[in-house]
Amino acid sequence: MAAVKQIREAGVAAALTNHETIDLAKRHLVQPWPCAGEIGAEARSLISGGEGIYITDGEGKRLIDGPAGMWCVNVGHRREELARVMYDQAMQLSYNTPWYTMNEPSAVLAERIAAYAPGDLNHVFFTTGGSTAVESALRFMQFFNNARGRSDKKLILSRGGAYHGSTYLSASLNGRPRDRDWMDGADELVVKLSSPDAFRRPEGMSIAAFSDMLVAEFEETVRRVGADKIGAFIGEPVQASGGVILPPENYLPRIRKICRDNEILFIADEVVTAFGRLGHVFASEDVFGIDPDIITFAKGVTSGYFPLGGMVVSERLLEQLRRSNHPTAMYAHGLTYTSHPVGCAVALTNLDLLEDGILAHTQAVAPYFQQQLKTLEELPLVGEVRGIGLMACVECVADRESKNPLQLDTNVGMRIDAHCHELGLLVRPLINMCVMSPPLVITREQIDDMVGILREGISRTMDDLRHEGVWQG
Amino acid sequence: MAAVKQIREAGVAAALTNHETIDLAKRHLVQPWPCAGEIGAEARSLISGGEGIYITDGEGKRLIDGPAGMWCVNVGHRREELARVMYDQAMQLSYNTPWYTMNEPSAVLAERIAAYAPGDLNHVFFTTGGSTAVESALRFMQFFNNARGRSDKKLILSRGGAYHGSTYLSASLNGRPRDRDWMDGADELVVKLSSPDAFRRPEGMSIAAFSDMLVAEFEETVRRVGADKIGAFIGEPVQASGGVILPPENYLPRIRKICRDNEILFIADEVVTAFGRLGHVFASEDVFGIDPDIITFAKGVTSGYFPLGGMVVSERLLEQLRRSNHPTAMYAHGLTYTSHPVGCAVALTNLDLLEDGILAHTQAVAPYFQQQLKTLEELPLVGEVRGIGLMACVECVADRESKNPLQLDTNVGMRIDAHCHELGLLVRPLINMCVMSPPLVITREQIDDMVGILREGISRTMDDLRHEGVWQG
Repeated sequence: MAAVKQIREAGVAAALTNHETIDLAKRHLVQPWPCAGEIGAEARSLISGGEGIYITDGEGKRLIDGPAGMWCVNVGHRREELARVMYDQAMQLSYNTPWYTMNEPSAVLAERIAAYAPGDLNHVFFTTGGSTAVESALRFMQFFNNARGRSDKKLILSRGGAYHGSTYLSASLNGRPRDRDWMDGADELVVKLSSPDAFRRPEGMSIAAFSDMLVAEFEETVRRVGADKIGAFIGEPVQASGGVILPPENYLPRIRKICRDNEILFIADEVVTAFGRLGHVFASEDVFGIDPDIITFAKGVTSGYFPLGGMVVSERLLEQLRRSNHPTAMYAHGLTYTSHPVGCAVALTNLDLLEDGILAHTQAVAPYFQQQLKTLEELPLVGEVRGIGLMACVECVADRESKNPLQLDTNVGMRIDAHCHELGLLVRPLINMCVMSPPLVITREQIDDMVGILREGISRTMDDLRHEGVWQG
Repeated sequence: MAAVKQIREAGVAAALTNHETIDLAKRHLVQPWPCAGEIGAEARSLISGGEGIYITDGEGKRLIDGPAGMWCVNVGHRREELARVMYDQAMQLSYNTPWYTMNEPSAVLAERIAAYAPGDLNHVFFTTGGSTAVESALRFMQFFNNARGRSDKKLILSRGGAYHGSTYLSASLNGRPRDRDWMDGADELVVKLSSPDAFRRPEGMSIAAFSDMLVAEFEETVRRVGADKIGAFIGEPVQASGGVILPPENYLPRIRKICRDNEILFIADEVVTAFGRLGHVFASEDVFGIDPDIITFAKGVTSGYFPLGGMVVSERLLEQLRRSNHPTAMYAHGLTYTSHPVGCAVALTNLDLLEDGILAHTQAVAPYFQQQLKTLEELPLVGEVRGIGLMACVECVADRESKNPLQLDTNVGMRIDAHCHELGLLVRPLINMCVMSPPLVITREQIDDMVGILREGISRTMDDLRHEGVWQG
């Protein structure tokens, strides 16, 4: 306990050596997504500080925060305005129970979010992050259909490549195979559709034909399963953790129409795409031309400074509930930290920052970001660079003809990450992919740095792979 | 948007009139636990500030915060140390992705929590609150049994009166009927046992015999369902939202032993009881003499200033996983806000405050708190006052002989709350019960005030009920 006593006296300033912190983590901290072989006995790269687009590792090395934390530090690290509002709101009102009471920041934030949301999405329910936002939307759908006497209309359509969370029900929607191998899920509630991954569409098929194929699959599924059995479709407008999968043109509006025609709630999971990542507060309408029934959000709403998420729900749906035959039926749902006054105050200031220049900056700099990353396709290991706004994915392949991903055991993403870390960039490795989604305040010069490091990191990885005889490119 | 612009310029200071805030909430905020008839069209009592054990309502009226928010504001409102550490940590490092990196506050907090946890509970996994803590524990049990080749051993034992959360799986464990009427749940994964509610035990039965009956039911259930089918038992040491239900003596250790003998994980849900509510950091061992396999916690860990929760897991279980035949099996679980640096820094300072006097104060003042509340049993409307530490429940009954709760439509809890609000106390009404769990810093004088107001509030309610001819006591 000696080390611990020391840090208590020093406040938040780093009081332990890296070795001591790593030792504590190995002995006492369970990391997310651990493997059985090392659970409760591992440490990860220590990060000690942040400023703007940079974070500092345990050795004091400055790194560009390539993934902006976890697609979330949108306004950048160390924004004094956000630290200040946490302090001020905590000194004003740090907590009130939302069961019997309410606070001003949550009411004001709800109005500001509703003003940005498309169509009649005028009502906001707050949670603590993306998983709980998705749980809220799905439990709302179940309640909605129970209260309207349609208790069989509950199945959920989700897609390959999807990521919707890490609670039992939200995780059941995930379409990434590795996430499900050893975990249980509510499979009986979910029907899976194909990923809209155009890079891996059937050979020789045009993107328009691929879009037709996805829409036909959706229609066929509704016919086969029965519209009276399907409560909701949930999808990320851009599949983020699946590898920045962009929807083929017109695919989302067509799916939206099928949902409307069959009274299937369309839930747009904008946990990643909302609050500036694509240059807008919400991307559903402004970027993709759709008006969902429910939008879920998290991450960028507070730029990761405070756990907050939520859903925006259509007025029409609530009106139907208010007029239902069961006015005392209770949507028995809510978290201790629903409508947290500090989280909502942080989100209000974060939205000020987005409005006061960061959204405009994102729109201005995004084309340059995509253009510069696209030049990495010159490298033979790179199969495709794709993206939109300030999110992109560099997908590596063993062979461009077959588009085969590199063997898993070469861990090409991890290798690139290791080289880039040395060169000053944190990458988000995803098997054979590197995801780039930096803080939105990144400048053109910083984009040049980022792409330059990534180019060098991939080049060094190619050399390693050639040297080891794993790859000949 | 005029009102909104105004608050932006004024920072967190209240810039709207009460009327304006209430109007915004009614038009845009969805409250937790709404009824269909008013969903998206309701406002609740506005709270504008807090200090110590007090909160201030929209009219500037000071109220004792009877439920400490939602059993969570343990160190009290407006603790400058907690506001300060949020600011300092946010300026140092506001966020890092726990997928590839880690931070010092989470490693240090894990060690400090492990040091307080009983037995070999040495490893901590962090979430954003109680529901996600419970989801983590249950998904861990599922993973644990999958990785150990026992994929049929997954059923979960839970009890009447339980409250474990508001996500699909955690809510499936809840035993309060009203929470489940219109909501779906994973009923196929859960086996329900009786509530250990001694107040409503069979007439004429001793508490010792009641305890025997509960244990026999548990044993019989394990025999009937099969130990090879049951993965975990989850229980609150004191059922909180169920009405402060205390376990009969020796009941918990006996259940614990049956679980150990049958390799059923014993999960103690200490979301309410941990971090000081019963005068200790954890209550499992210090108060109830049990060493669970997993303890879940939330609420008091940050006194509600920041959404944080988690679970403490046994070293033995992790060791079994590390030695399993599937070292690459992945516990594919984790939240964006797992190991949040600001949340963990807040928890460290909160733990300092508990250690530096508040735990000792709680232990000193708790007997007086219980004694004074107990005097309310003099009132004929009160069927029982029960409690432990700084949590208690005043249960009202129409008739002491039959112990019948008052008719639901008299809403006796809400009536008492309304009178008490006028007199300066916020109550947590639960149908026919009033729960008291004030900030732990409450003094004897403040306990006198609280009990005095409650006595007057109940007396006025009795007058109302008599006047309306609803009750003759």
